[in-house]
Amino acid sequence: MKAEIIAIGTEILLGDIVNSNAQYLGQEMASLGIDMHYQQVVGDNEKRIIHAFDEAYSRSDIVITTGGLGPTEDDLTKEVAAKYFNKKLIPHENSIKRIKEYFEFRQKRMPENNLKQGLIPEGCIVIKNNNGTAPGVIIEENNKTMIILPGPPKEMKPMFEEAVRPYFQKKSDSVLVSKMIKILGVGESTIAEELKDLMESQINPTIAPYAKEVGVIVRVTAKARTEEEAVKLIIPIEEEIKKRLGDNVYAIEDIDLEEVVAKLLIEKKLTISTAESCTGGMIASTLINYPGISEVLLEGAVTYSNEAKHKRLGVKNETLDKYGAVSEETAMEMAIGIAKTAGTDVSIVTTGIAGPGGGTKEKPVGLVYVGIYVKGKVEVQKCMFNGNRSRVRLQATITGLDMLRRNLIKK
Amino acid sequence: MKAEIIAIGTEILLGDIVNSNAQYLGQEMASLGIDMHYQQVVGDNEKRIIHAFDEAYSRSDIVITTGGLGPTEDDLTKEVAAKYFNKKLIPHENSIKRIKEYFEFRQKRMPENNLKQGLIPEGCIVIKNNNGTAPGVIIEENNKTMIILPGPPKEMKPMFEEAVRPYFQKKSDSVLVSKMIKILGVGESTIAEELKDLMESQINPTIAPYAKEVGVIVRVTAKARTEEEAVKLIIPIEEEIKKRLGDNVYAIEDIDLEEVVAKLLIEKKLTISTAESCTGGMIASTLINYPGISEVLLEGAVTYSNEAKHKRLGVKNETLDKYGAVSEETAMEMAIGIAKTAGTDVSIVTTGIAGPGGGTKEKPVGLVYVGIYVKGKVEVQKCMFNGNRSRVRLQATITGLDMLRRNLIKK
Repeated sequence: MKAEIIAIGTEILLGDIVNSNAQYLGQEMASLGIDMHYQQVVGDNEKRIIHAFDEAYSRSDIVITTGGLGPTEDDLTKEVAAKYFNKKLIPHENSIKRIKEYFEFRQKRMPENNLKQGLIPEGCIVIKNNNGTAPGVIIEENNKTMIILPGPPKEMKPMFEEAVRPYFQKKSDSVLVSKMIKILGVGESTIAEELKDLMESQINPTIAPYAKEVGVIVRVTAKARTEEEAVKLIIPIEEEIKKRLGDNVYAIEDIDLEEVVAKLLIEKKLTISTAESCTGGMIASTLINYPGISEVLLEGAVTYSNEAKHKRLGVKNETLDKYGAVSEETAMEMAIGIAKTAGTDVSIVTTGIAGPGGGTKEKPVGLVYVGIYVKGKVEVQKCMFNGNRSRVRLQATITGLDMLRRNLIKK
Repeated sequence: MKAEIIAIGTEILLGDIVNSNAQYLGQEMASLGIDMHYQQVVGDNEKRIIHAFDEAYSRSDIVITTGGLGPTEDDLTKEVAAKYFNKKLIPHENSIKRIKEYFEFRQKRMPENNLKQGLIPEGCIVIKNNNGTAPGVIIEENNKTMIILPGPPKEMKPMFEEAVRPYFQKKSDSVLVSKMIKILGVGESTIAEELKDLMESQINPTIAPYAKEVGVIVRVTAKARTEEEAVKLIIPIEEEIKKRLGDNVYAIEDIDLEEVVAKLLIEKKLTISTAESCTGGMIASTLINYPGISEVLLEGAVTYSNEAKHKRLGVKNETLDKYGAVSEETAMEMAIGIAKTAGTDVSIVTTGIAGPGGGTKEKPVGLVYVGIYVKGKVEVQKCMFNGNRSRVRLQATITGLDMLRRNLIKK
């Protein structure tokens, strides 16, 4: 069974909206174990929509369309599908009733053209829309299945969840389960080398690394008759990958780095402060993404100027004069200074040149000293990051959090 | 001239990532006046990629591919394209040099398979990648053009901007010029009402408002033979929109709010500090996006705990006890306190409940007091923001910066 998604809407081609429906449906179909080899996007144009249908059915059994079910004349999906399958459009009483109620509930006058949304190709399965006026349709004809869904994600997703997923589950005999292993400190190609034998010998589960904005994820995907069986297939592979990549694995699934760090701090009852120069508050702000952080984060300082580094953190003027603000020595004194004045067990600090200006031959743009202080011990890492100002700052932020994570898991 | 985008990557079909490249390229091609009737997504599979190429060239002159230029064996785009156009892959010295330098700069060992990224179909235009290791390629053959770009947006977008856009501009006989007018403080539907007569009467330039994550942009787009002529068409419309929307227009084009605020501060020779509770460093970090800020930003404080608000900023314990940390009174004392201890002319502060927990009936999640201090005068705004934790924090950040902007332009 192969499926294909066709998003219908000129607004997607023009880039007015991002096709997030395709991502959602991709995940859902994968989790149902239904293969998908292609996706298409086509504008609101009868000829081109038919061309897209023809193309899709030349290689797939199931077509899922999103969009083009609105009340205006531009919205053509249902009309074109009815024509494609030689079906008449007939009024669907329940849908028309729902559309009228929708407007009554909102105390709004129903524009006449909304009634068009209550027309359905004859002999089809109707999917109720609890969050809008356009019902969905499932057409089954000559071993072809077409599932027609509205474009707005807040309508489409519940309809998939409530009607389409159960429809497929009834037909299918297998499930696909995926697990993401999140990694920092080694690149995609190194990971591919490290896992080469596993990746080549494994068919079920499959193993695939992907580079993210910072770091890499490895996705392990298993197919089985039940979710339980699929998970059982994943576990030994997951363990093997964790063994090979060691501390570079910082989380499994949807957990973010800041959550890992925050939980380590809370578990070990360690309070934390930050003092940031080039990252300018990004480390504190990232930690605060995790709501529970308030237990342990006492204070953050953005000490962008030399004066603030001296006055706030007690970095010695001699240190700033002799080694400069961007130096290992300054980073060390910052780390000790903020922990002392904030009275915390732990601190993270940064000082560097994020660019675009300010670089010299000795201290180029991208040079950042990232430091951590943990109960009296200071560790400073000299880093060379590439990319623009925001990339440099992001990498410095991640490096600071990851240095602390690696330090804390060792104890 | 018709174009088509093919995103290549199984991770898109599986929904691991959203195809945001297609949105970006859709906008760019529309702004270049190049029609696009279809988009495709296909997995990392030779046969299917060739099928997608055939399909695309049956109806379009230009194909833009994104993705599949990585160092692993899964990454096939360049190899398949070379085969498709009967071209040999040959080493491209400059690209290989850049790849080696990329790893040297990071003081990392280069995995052997990265060298594959330096191979280029012979006789093609090479597009330099300043943010990664995979160069792009433009193939021109039998009236077909293929533009091959890497998948990561941070690499792809600058390459489009620096090489592909100029490439198309040279070929076209008309240009489309767009100008974005950036607005805060009024919603999309109010703007649409305010500009209704203009939007309806205008064909060239066209006027279209879009809601952004925070705020709205109005895009004015003109078509003409030269850029100069197009700009001339835009100017009177731009002036009229600015007149109607007044101070709500905070910038034109690619200027960010933080840049507007930073420039106002620098121009007026005002120094600034920040004290953030719920935004946790996001305001300081946003200001620091603008490199020139170092002239005026003396210090930032993240005072998440009551103790830090008292100790660092001098907020009275009685104030915290009587009114609570999330109150107008606390915000006022924070604003005065940080300006005093940091010795700045101006400050921005926030204190609020970003959620998901911590809300009460009187002080629900989303309640944020945003305060500014400007040369002895304090102004506090009580805000109710909706959305999740990060949405609340983002809106508080923008509100603080926008309050300061509106204050500074009045003087």
